Amino acid sequence: MVSPAPEELRRAARDARAAYRAGRVDPTSGVAPGFTQANLVAVPADWAFEVLLFAQRNPQPCPVLDVLEVGQVESALAPGSDVRTDLPAYRVFRDGVVVEEVADATPYWENLVTLLIGCSFTFETPLLAAGIPVRHQELGRNVPMYRTDRPCVPAGRLHGDLVVSMRPVPADRVADAVAISGRFPAVHGAPVHVGDPAGLGIRDLDSPDFGGPPLVRDGEVPVFWACGVTPQVALLESRPPFALTHAPGHMFVTDVLDSEYDTACDRGAA
Amino acid sequence: MVSPAPEELRRAARDARAAYRAGRVDPTSGVAPGFTQANLVAVPADWAFEVLLFAQRNPQPCPVLDVLEVGQVESALAPGSDVRTDLPAYRVFRDGVVVEEVADATPYWENLVTLLIGCSFTFETPLLAAGIPVRHQELGRNVPMYRTDRPCVPAGRLHGDLVVSMRPVPADRVADAVAISGRFPAVHGAPVHVGDPAGLGIRDLDSPDFGGPPLVRDGEVPVFWACGVTPQVALLESRPPFALTHAPGHMFVTDVLDSEYDTACDRGAA
Repeated sequence: MVSPAPEELRRAARDARAAYRAGRVDPTSGVAPGFTQANLVAVPADWAFEVLLFAQRNPQPCPVLDVLEVGQVESALAPGSDVRTDLPAYRVFRDGVVVEEVADATPYWENLVTLLIGCSFTFETPLLAAGIPVRHQELGRNVPMYRTDRPCVPAGRLHGDLVVSMRPVPADRVADAVAISGRFPAVHGAPVHVGDPAGLGIRDLDSPDFGGPPLVRDGEVPVFWACGVTPQVALLESRPPFALTHAPGHMFVTDVLDSEYDTACDRGAA
Repeated sequence: MVSPAPEELRRAARDARAAYRAGRVDPTSGVAPGFTQANLVAVPADWAFEVLLFAQRNPQPCPVLDVLEVGQVESALAPGSDVRTDLPAYRVFRDGVVVEEVADATPYWENLVTLLIGCSFTFETPLLAAGIPVRHQELGRNVPMYRTDRPCVPAGRLHGDLVVSMRPVPADRVADAVAISGRFPAVHGAPVHVGDPAGLGIRDLDSPDFGGPPLVRDGEVPVFWACGVTPQVALLESRPPFALTHAPGHMFVTDVLDSEYDTACDRGAA
C-alpha cells in the first residue's frame, strides 16, 4: 500500500488541488513536481464491475491506483480531497458522446464509482532529473495523445482501442527513457512503441486526438507510452448512458510521492 | 499477458483436469509440476464488483489471474477447460455458511462471475528445485492454512481477515525461500510472516483452520504466505446469499507454466 507524503512535504500538491477547486483550469503536467498524478473515470454502479475488469485486463493503460465506492469523494491518495472539484476540468459523457466540459463535477455526481488510474506525468520528473527533455513541459503545452489501432482486451460491454501519449526523445537517450519509465509499472511503465507512428495506426503525428501539437526535433525519436485516456475511448465506443472523466491532461494531483511507485525504491509492498 | 504452454507440453495439466472432471477428488499440491494452479471464487453478478475490488485492494492474498464473465466457463489459462467440473472439489456457500462440498459444481452454476486467483503451489516447484523441502508434499497431505487476525482492506459489503498457508523451512534456507517466492508476486510472492505464529494471531499451529496438520522439525521455522483461501473467509464473514469456491487445497490446474509468473524470467509483460 502506498501512503501520502508527510504533511509538511505535500503543500505543493494541496495548493494545486485548492486552486483547481477554486476554478483554475490548466493542464497539470509539471505541476507539483514529485507528486503522482492520476486519471479519473467515474461511472454509475451498474457499469463499475466492467470498468474495473477492463482496467484489470488492460493494466498497462489502466493501472488502478485507487477506487472510490459509491458515496465516497475523498481519495486515500490525498487526505481532504474531493474528486468532484479538485481536478482542473472534467468531461461529461452521455451515450458515448462528450456533451460538456466542466470545472466542477459536483452537479453530476450521483451514485458514481470512481477509478483513479496512473498517469505518465508521474515519471516525467525522473526523466527530467536524468536530463531527458520533456518537450510539452518546455513548450507549456498539454502532452499529445493519440488513438491507436491496438484493441484493448474487452470487458463485458466495454471495448475500445489503446490510447498513447507521445514524447520526443533524443535517439541516444531512448534506452534511458525506457529504463526509467520501466521502473514505474503503476503509471504505465515502459513505452509500448518507439519510432514510426504508423506502427500504431497513427496517420498524422501532427494531429493528436487529445492534448497539444507535438514538436519533434532533428535527432529525436517519437516514443509512445500507454495512456490513461484509454478508458475515455472505451466510453466513446461502448456508450454507457453516463460517465464522467477528467479532461485529458487535466489530472488529479495526489499527495503520494512518485517514489512510492518506483519499483527501484521498493518498500516491500506486494 | 500470459499464454498457455504449447500443446505438446501441457498433457500433465490436461490429464489432471480430465481426472477431476471424471470425479477424482484429491488435493492438487504436487500435481502437474511446473503448471500454475489457481484458487476459484464465483459469485452472482451483483457481488462481482465487490469481489473484484476486494482482490484489487488485497493483491497479496488475492492476485487475479483470470476473470470469467457471466456465461463463460472456459478459462483463457486452460483451453478446453470447464471451471464447473475441472477442479477436484468445490464448496457451496449460502448466507455465509458452507452448506455442501461437491465434486461437480454444474448444478449450482447460474449467472456467476468467476475469479481465478494465484496459488502458492505455483512456487513449490522452484522451492523443491532449490532443495528446499515442501513438507506437506513429502507427507502426501494438504498444506496447512490458518485464519489470522490481520484484517484485509474491505470492499463494499466484503470484509474479512487474511488467511495464510504455512511451510516449515530449515533456518538456513529461509532467505532462499523468501527470494524464490518473492519472484512470483502473481502467486502471493514473498512470505507475509516468518516465525512465531502468535504474531499473526494463530493460537495453535497444530490445528490449522483448513488443510492438513503441520509437521515442523527441529531446526525449521514456520514460514507463512498469503493464501487464496482469504476470499472464503470474507464470504463466511460477509454472508452473500450464494457463492461457490474451490475446496481449500483442491485447485484449478492451468496450462500456464509457472515460469510465466516468474518475474526473473520476465517476458516484457506490463
